[in-house]
Amino acid sequence: MTNERRTVRVDLGERGYDIVIGERLLETAEDVLAPIVAGRRAVVVTDAVIRDAHLPRLAAVLDRLCDRWDTVTVPAGEDAKSFRELEALLHRLLDLGIDRSTVLVAFGGGAVGDVAGFAAALFMRGIDLVQIPTTLMSQVDSAVGGKNAINTPHGKNLVGTFHQPRIVLDDVSVLESLPRRELLSGYGEVVKCGLIRGEAEFAWLEENAPSLLALDAGPLIEAVRMGCGTKAGIVASDERDRGDRALVNLGHTFAHALEAEAGYGALLHGEAVAAGLAAATALSARLGHCDPRVAERVRGHLRAVRLPDRVAALASDRPWDPRALLTHMAHDKKTVAGRIHFVLLRGIGSPFVDGTVPGQAVLDVLDGECRRG
Amino acid sequence: MTNERRTVRVDLGERGYDIVIGERLLETAEDVLAPIVAGRRAVVVTDAVIRDAHLPRLAAVLDRLCDRWDTVTVPAGEDAKSFRELEALLHRLLDLGIDRSTVLVAFGGGAVGDVAGFAAALFMRGIDLVQIPTTLMSQVDSAVGGKNAINTPHGKNLVGTFHQPRIVLDDVSVLESLPRRELLSGYGEVVKCGLIRGEAEFAWLEENAPSLLALDAGPLIEAVRMGCGTKAGIVASDERDRGDRALVNLGHTFAHALEAEAGYGALLHGEAVAAGLAAATALSARLGHCDPRVAERVRGHLRAVRLPDRVAALASDRPWDPRALLTHMAHDKKTVAGRIHFVLLRGIGSPFVDGTVPGQAVLDVLDGECRRG
Repeated sequence: MTNERRTVRVDLGERGYDIVIGERLLETAEDVLAPIVAGRRAVVVTDAVIRDAHLPRLAAVLDRLCDRWDTVTVPAGEDAKSFRELEALLHRLLDLGIDRSTVLVAFGGGAVGDVAGFAAALFMRGIDLVQIPTTLMSQVDSAVGGKNAINTPHGKNLVGTFHQPRIVLDDVSVLESLPRRELLSGYGEVVKCGLIRGEAEFAWLEENAPSLLALDAGPLIEAVRMGCGTKAGIVASDERDRGDRALVNLGHTFAHALEAEAGYGALLHGEAVAAGLAAATALSARLGHCDPRVAERVRGHLRAVRLPDRVAALASDRPWDPRALLTHMAHDKKTVAGRIHFVLLRGIGSPFVDGTVPGQAVLDVLDGECRRG
Repeated sequence: MTNERRTVRVDLGERGYDIVIGERLLETAEDVLAPIVAGRRAVVVTDAVIRDAHLPRLAAVLDRLCDRWDTVTVPAGEDAKSFRELEALLHRLLDLGIDRSTVLVAFGGGAVGDVAGFAAALFMRGIDLVQIPTTLMSQVDSAVGGKNAINTPHGKNLVGTFHQPRIVLDDVSVLESLPRRELLSGYGEVVKCGLIRGEAEFAWLEENAPSLLALDAGPLIEAVRMGCGTKAGIVASDERDRGDRALVNLGHTFAHALEAEAGYGALLHGEAVAAGLAAATALSARLGHCDPRVAERVRGHLRAVRLPDRVAALASDRPWDPRALLTHMAHDKKTVAGRIHFVLLRGIGSPFVDGTVPGQAVLDVLDGECRRG
């Protein structure tokens, strides 16, 4: 174990906050939690799996710091992200008799962070929130930036709000209990961050992926720091997602279409992102924006870590249909007035948004990505 | 009819906006609506009463400006402010296939403004909102400042968010169809604003109340301007309700308790506010903060316009119970760590927040306010 901590600042003025990354933070983060929860009430929102596996580790710190703290559990996974569960959670918070000085602690993966963050935004029009994400995906991505949302029959994340946490604690030790498939899915977002950041960072991932995926704490902390740093920088420049923040969606226009076509829950988000990164770089190369060797290098790294390196590598009981995927893209939340927005690459470290990609070019690329064999 | 318009700026930097006040604005506000809705889609959220009475007047402007516009109705009155109706409204917006460039137009009283504003805040994490309030209460108060909320079985407005509109249009002509009791209720908030503002404004109300309550457009526009100006100034200094914004709650700690005790719907909000203003000034005098003649002057003005001038003047089938009211106050959303916060007066124009009022002083004042005879 290392006592080393890394801190990434999300620079949003008076709403700014730190992401603290390290080992065994659940037991040792008393110093950074104290300014937020000391002498106040807290409610930990979690799911039964995380509660049983990790809550006892956090309990001692909360016992020492809080005036009183309670636990509320929500269903595990995406089931938590519904109107029904949001309403039930808010009612349980009201039942507890908490007030505006209470701190909500979101303790779980992305879904828990979403519904707890949403409830914190709405409870008496906003109470303090602490994010303690427990998956690699949420540590590097969803717990940072203040976005939250629920799903509706019309699609994922169509209803939500922005509510920045007061602090994010990324304890890499909790990843030891994460299923391998979930860990790899989270690594898909890390690869995206490397591609956004630059050559040095992507090369570092190519070299260190085996050890960080083996949960070697040093490289893991460094990878989480890189992911959070990427997100933090982009969020700080565009909190409300009106411009630059779109860059974090590299690979995501494809990924959202793949998830919608597969039926929600069939793919893990990071698996769809991995195939989306391969498709986005292939599209960038096809349109002449970047060297085709970049696309091959991305594909090679995904294959090396056993992430899907093309659409056809994603589990599906029938062939993937390029036209169906294009239709989903036309209904993406980011699509305004019918213009599909893609994040493309001029090279590693040089992403840009393009709202003028011809549909035929997308179809041509998808034809290649979807072909089995 | 006067073509005179008054504009009040809500100074919130990049989220700042104008409140435009005048006669026949529904037909003539094309110039101020154009920068917001021209060439875009709009959805008017309203109730059946306002739709039938006033939507045709607004339709011509929307026809000329919008790419397309639709209407969605919600139940009239507080029934709209529920989780169920919020969810139903969001689903109907999704059914319409609108995107993030669509503008939501809240067209109705406070409840419509609340649920429509809430939906605008949550739809794809926030779309543009235009507030066109149709009651005096919403024109001077609830449509300004970006607060929205729904009710739960635990109480009123416990779940909500902040979402500033792009513009507020206060067309005093629509007040012609407002029931007299609703008009008077709205005037209760205007009295509050006069007390917050100062001697000149309160004296102006004492003189002009009869003509503005007779819907004489000149004084009515001036009164709405004064109410909006008061709210706008306070909101600009404390958007998120952490400090100064509490001053707009003069009379409201009492009013919320009266509404909760009466059962929601039994009293109009402005009626409870009127009795609350009498109680707050009486409490201020009793604690030695202001001259007892201020309290008598407030009571005299309320009586003159036929608003409740004391708790006992509020309709109730049983005597009002001071202890029950105090218990409700202890559960107010503004009550943190058991300290009830009152807005008191040092004089007309000098409100301040006091979190140290002894419970016995409150009970003594309520004994007098609740006594019939």
